[in-house]
Amino acid sequence: MRTSRRENHREAVAGRANVADTPALDAYYDALERKEMGALWTVANKIEPWQPRPQSVPTIWRWADVRPAILQAPDLVSPEDAGRRVIMLVNPGRREVSAAVGLLYSGIQIMKAGEAATAHRHMASALRFIMEGQGAYTIVDGERMTLGVNDFVLTPNGTWHEHGVDASGTTCIWQDGLDIPLMNALDANFYTVHPDLRQRTNQPTDSSVRLHGAGFVQPAWLRQAWTKPYSPLLKFDWAPTYEALTRAAQVSDGSPYDGIIMEYVNPLTGGPVMPTIGASMQLLRPGEHTKAHRHTGSFVYHVAKGRGFSVIDGRRFDWQERDIFVVPSWSVHEHANLDDRVDACLFTFNDLPVMQALATYAEQPCPDNGGHQMVVA
Amino acid sequence: MRTSRRENHREAVAGRANVADTPALDAYYDALERKEMGALWTVANKIEPWQPRPQSVPTIWRWADVRPAILQAPDLVSPEDAGRRVIMLVNPGRREVSAAVGLLYSGIQIMKAGEAATAHRHMASALRFIMEGQGAYTIVDGERMTLGVNDFVLTPNGTWHEHGVDASGTTCIWQDGLDIPLMNALDANFYTVHPDLRQRTNQPTDSSVRLHGAGFVQPAWLRQAWTKPYSPLLKFDWAPTYEALTRAAQVSDGSPYDGIIMEYVNPLTGGPVMPTIGASMQLLRPGEHTKAHRHTGSFVYHVAKGRGFSVIDGRRFDWQERDIFVVPSWSVHEHANLDDRVDACLFTFNDLPVMQALATYAEQPCPDNGGHQMVVA
Amino acid sequence: MRTSRRENHREAVAGRANVADTPALDAYYDALERKEMGALWTVANKIEPWQPRPQSVPTIWRWADVRPAILQAPDLVSPEDAGRRVIMLVNPGRREVSAAVGLLYSGIQIMKAGEAATAHRHMASALRFIMEGQGAYTIVDGERMTLGVNDFVLTPNGTWHEHGVDASGTTCIWQDGLDIPLMNALDANFYTVHPDLRQRTNQPTDSSVRLHGAGFVQPAWLRQAWTKPYSPLLKFDWAPTYEALTRAAQVSDGSPYDGIIMEYVNPLTGGPVMPTIGASMQLLRPGEHTKAHRHTGSFVYHVAKGRGFSVIDGRRFDWQERDIFVVPSWSVHEHANLDDRVDACLFTFNDLPVMQALATYAEQPCPDNGGHQMVVA
Amino acid sequence: MRTSRRENHREAVAGRANVADTPALDAYYDALERKEMGALWTVANKIEPWQPRPQSVPTIWRWADVRPAILQAPDLVSPEDAGRRVIMLVNPGRREVSAAVGLLYSGIQIMKAGEAATAHRHMASALRFIMEGQGAYTIVDGERMTLGVNDFVLTPNGTWHEHGVDASGTTCIWQDGLDIPLMNALDANFYTVHPDLRQRTNQPTDSSVRLHGAGFVQPAWLRQAWTKPYSPLLKFDWAPTYEALTRAAQVSDGSPYDGIIMEYVNPLTGGPVMPTIGASMQLLRPGEHTKAHRHTGSFVYHVAKGRGFSVIDGRRFDWQERDIFVVPSWSVHEHANLDDRVDACLFTFNDLPVMQALATYAEQPCPDNGGHQMVVA
Repeated sequence: MRTSRRENHREAVAGRANVADTPALDAYYDALERKEMGALWTVANKIEPWQPRPQSVPTIWRWADVRPAILQAPDLVSPEDAGRRVIMLVNPGRREVSAAVGLLYSGIQIMKAGEAATAHRHMASALRFIMEGQGAYTIVDGERMTLGVNDFVLTPNGTWHEHGVDASGTTCIWQDGLDIPLMNALDANFYTVHPDLRQRTNQPTDSSVRLHGAGFVQPAWLRQAWTKPYSPLLKFDWAPTYEALTRAAQVSDGSPYDGIIMEYVNPLTGGPVMPTIGASMQLLRPGEHTKAHRHTGSFVYHVAKGRGFSVIDGRRFDWQERDIFVVPSWSVHEHANLDDRVDACLFTFNDLPVMQALATYAEQPCPDNGGHQMVVA
Repeated sequence: MRTSRRENHREAVAGRANVADTPALDAYYDALERKEMGALWTVANKIEPWQPRPQSVPTIWRWADVRPAILQAPDLVSPEDAGRRVIMLVNPGRREVSAAVGLLYSGIQIMKAGEAATAHRHMASALRFIMEGQGAYTIVDGERMTLGVNDFVLTPNGTWHEHGVDASGTTCIWQDGLDIPLMNALDANFYTVHPDLRQRTNQPTDSSVRLHGAGFVQPAWLRQAWTKPYSPLLKFDWAPTYEALTRAAQVSDGSPYDGIIMEYVNPLTGGPVMPTIGASMQLLRPGEHTKAHRHTGSFVYHVAKGRGFSVIDGRRFDWQERDIFVVPSWSVHEHANLDDRVDACLFTFNDLPVMQALATYAEQPCPDNGGHQMVVA
Repeated sequence: MRTSRRENHREAVAGRANVADTPALDAYYDALERKEMGALWTVANKIEPWQPRPQSVPTIWRWADVRPAILQAPDLVSPEDAGRRVIMLVNPGRREVSAAVGLLYSGIQIMKAGEAATAHRHMASALRFIMEGQGAYTIVDGERMTLGVNDFVLTPNGTWHEHGVDASGTTCIWQDGLDIPLMNALDANFYTVHPDLRQRTNQPTDSSVRLHGAGFVQPAWLRQAWTKPYSPLLKFDWAPTYEALTRAAQVSDGSPYDGIIMEYVNPLTGGPVMPTIGASMQLLRPGEHTKAHRHTGSFVYHVAKGRGFSVIDGRRFDWQERDIFVVPSWSVHEHANLDDRVDACLFTFNDLPVMQALATYAEQPCPDNGGHQMVVA
Repeated sequence: MRTSRRENHREAVAGRANVADTPALDAYYDALERKEMGALWTVANKIEPWQPRPQSVPTIWRWADVRPAILQAPDLVSPEDAGRRVIMLVNPGRREVSAAVGLLYSGIQIMKAGEAATAHRHMASALRFIMEGQGAYTIVDGERMTLGVNDFVLTPNGTWHEHGVDASGTTCIWQDGLDIPLMNALDANFYTVHPDLRQRTNQPTDSSVRLHGAGFVQPAWLRQAWTKPYSPLLKFDWAPTYEALTRAAQVSDGSPYDGIIMEYVNPLTGGPVMPTIGASMQLLRPGEHTKAHRHTGSFVYHVAKGRGFSVIDGRRFDWQERDIFVVPSWSVHEHANLDDRVDACLFTFNDLPVMQALATYAEQPCPDNGGHQMVVA
């Protein structure tokens, strides 16, 4: 009796691989391996699962843990040495690729008043979501944008960008979101440091907001000229976003799975803000508890307002403002606002544009238990 | 010596038709005509002009003329008898097709407090721009929208729609814009009266504004479902439109030909609000005088605010609030704000989407005289 | 008792205009007219018909009439004087705009061996369909294409083009199709004579056919560079077209209304060959009689092969090879192959791309009489 | 003196991370790790490389090795046990994900006369390229297709498909190509066995080829109905493909980097045949040696005809018919036909559609040495 030293993922199901190991096959496998080959049937059931089997696991990073940790960083490293002074949120199942979930990276960055980082650009698409502090700014291709809490700013693929805090400001903390793991998975990552290390601004502050910010009208003289694959509107302020949510909530129940969920869009196309990363802000009304569903795509949630919980693959995660949690692809999930009088808001960024561009989006409601999951943990 | 009784458009230019009439040809033409044929060379130079030769002529309808005329209508006809109590603006060169310019129709409609018109739908795309009065409303496919001065509302191709004024309102006047002549030119016009003569509302008032009005975010649960060829946002309020213009004016000079010109867009596509009619609002800063150019496409202008003049094909048209004027295709035009302290705003609707969809857009700056026309009249 | 001198299209239907003429209204109409205005209700029922009311009438031009007529032309005019030696097919209802049907122009052109016309370009889109003769060629933007019977060639909007017959050829006759009336209706027509009167070829003969002709593969190095709004494949040969029809007929019944109908496509987009004109070739099997339907869009048919009849708005038109007939928009039509052993082929060009781009396509089957019309004439 | 136990990728370049390990930082890293966090600056230079750093290495699998190996398989496993009797081509750097290169899988499958595999479907997109034998067939969504050497057949994402060899045929061998690693990287892989294990055919053999195979015309009655994200034409025969290459070679030099390279296209869109996998066939003329360049995207080459060599990242790989080799993303590559009288043809499948859909395509010519690489191995 022998035990093969190789993996062999057998399933006793018609149409699936189910080949017993034998000495003859073992010798065959050895010979194949020497020629950079292998027998599909030994791994077919692993590499072709019945449904997605993400390495990522549902995870929450509580602000009560993250904030003290990031506040230590300025005493330990300078922006010059660190490049960016950022603490990564690392999924337990995705540590090897530094992903928060799936192929999405996320980190928490801190800058003190008067600090500024060097400018660079990369193939990865990036965004920031402001968590606390005053005086933060980002410069993208020469446009300086001022940033406040819950503001959402893009630094799209290929744009020169840099961050800083005005000398008159306070220590600022924000969340970064990037598709670095996706770019690496695609073997398409590039990085360039700005030749002058800093950009000069070449237009008035917040130009893109003033030109493109009112999405229902767009500057006619700029529309035809824009050929880039991302939104010309680079910053989405919190106040009008929240107003849009509350106005929509006056006339609609929204999605059964997500409540009033508004996608940030490229106002010149109505499509996602960047080719690989989508983002949305959703409002859960006081006491609202959404139905459960699952779909492909990896999601990073950031609690912009309120408190509640989400059930992800049967496990309950309680959350409050500034907590960050992730829902892996094909994980069943539902959300609840625990406050009876105040709404809750969840910011999300995700790889839905990738799912849609590559025709890999799939969705399934949770039919059992009145649309809700049995909470098992 | 004979004189042909037929048209014969000769040009003594190489590559153009230049055939002299002869008795033999005349007999030939007679024979062709009996068989529903004709000789191209007799009309080629007419039907293939060197450049567009619109029948439409630049025309202005002054509010000082229009308002007294439309105010008489309620005493002369009821909405029931008239269908719609509307005075058409008829271009002197396009009387046969009831067009204001090119293939665009425009009229001025009046309704008294408490009046309501019957519901209908048609293949033509339509819009309204509110001129005066309180309490006007439009219902489109069950959505009731309230309307104030300078608000812009769509009643797109194929939608059930009806107009009225609340009993608590005042006499209301607005401009209608439609592509009726285009639909007739294309032999594609349809018209249906609503089987109940009136619609029931099926959603809260101004739903589309509250759901889609903040163009930079869009309701995620509605985006994928929308397959119609027009904007789901049906009303564009004046206040946020004017705010968008003034914000853009803070950071940009806009177009050299049009100043700060913002196109109303379908927020789900970034494209025009309807497949055949585009619309925009432009702001001319105090004292601003734009450069002249010409392009294909027919334009109806409505002075939403301020006073100034436009020069169209060398002729100056002075305008003030509520005046309406038209610029035919390929007519050279430039605009000026005559006030040194107050901005002026021009609303426009046009057939630019047709030009773009059919690849017939062409544009040319006016190179002479520093970019301005010689005013000849 | 008075009789109004104006048109007044009344209908006694709720929701339609129905205003009786009165002296007061007559005076009002006079006053309006002086200010370039008019009362909508007098013409509303005319300009907003219940369904399309084309001026075009179903018409057939028989080759037995057309061929003798066009053969006379060379003795009457030279290509130099005529520009193009073409006999137009003029719809009895559209004589004023020189249209064969709707907004489509068609003519029959003749050139003798060794003749050549001057090069020009225009905003109108154009095509040729070869009827008889050997040695015909067309040059489009420097590419010379050789042409045989039933070949279909494009001279798209904006391209330099010229036609001729080799000295070694025979007298050639072909059908021209253009959207001249559409360009004029849109006030977007332009015409330029080539500065040298003749083009020089700048690439091998039939280049586009050899590069793009096998539609299922396309030259990778050319795909990204092509930004023009028409097909890079400029000629569609008869032999492979007919082969495609017969192969499809082996496995499909095709359309109930049109049999095996294959659209000529832009192989880089799968869309129509030009932005305003579509074209197709359809095969009717021996004895096949299609069902009747109607839809928007104007169609010119050319009998490429066989004999049969079409019923258009209840009137039967018998046809044989080289006959040309038209189906106006919204006219009910059906086709029949009268031969029991040989298939029949109808070439068509039409304005379907306009209907689709402008969202004005509508279609309706003929439900009565087993899907067929009662033939009334 | 301590040695950190963690990775720390330092670079002494302004704008890059360069933080020395210290006991304080080490303690900080420990604390972060306990909370599922980490310091970006320790890995930033690794996860954000200056340019793509694929794990895949250029590799060739020679038919002289592969053929004997695959011919052994029928004696070792049955199709029933194996699911599919396939030998994978495993890149030395991508063994863990069973990829041939990047996120592309490839295998060599063998079936004997009369064998048939079970039907299944999956989110992965798949293709086959026939290498030898007679009587092979594939059934896709009820359409049976017959396959010969160098034929290329799609089994797109979501389609039921199965393979077999007619009893009257011979042992058949073909190459499979799938994006299994991409689907797993995206956490979007699904797999279903057909409920009946075998499909019934529901249309004539090779229907899609007869309906859609002549790419320059398309069946009008099917065009509007097709909404799937892949080509309705499922098989691309070798004979017309080779003819298209030779016809194009008569009039063009093709690409400086790839010679006459023709992309297989979806004839309804002109785009790639499937949303995640593109394919092309390229012809290198006798003696042709292309210039070198590099670009993002992973490529699998299959020598369909002829003999020559490719230089990949400075290393020369000689190839002949049926050899398979891969070019990883951003690897410099050039190709040469070693025969002076006979052309060579390379079939390729790749993830270019992913690069284009996600805006990650980048390209760079090789400027040195007259456009060619220095061969270092």
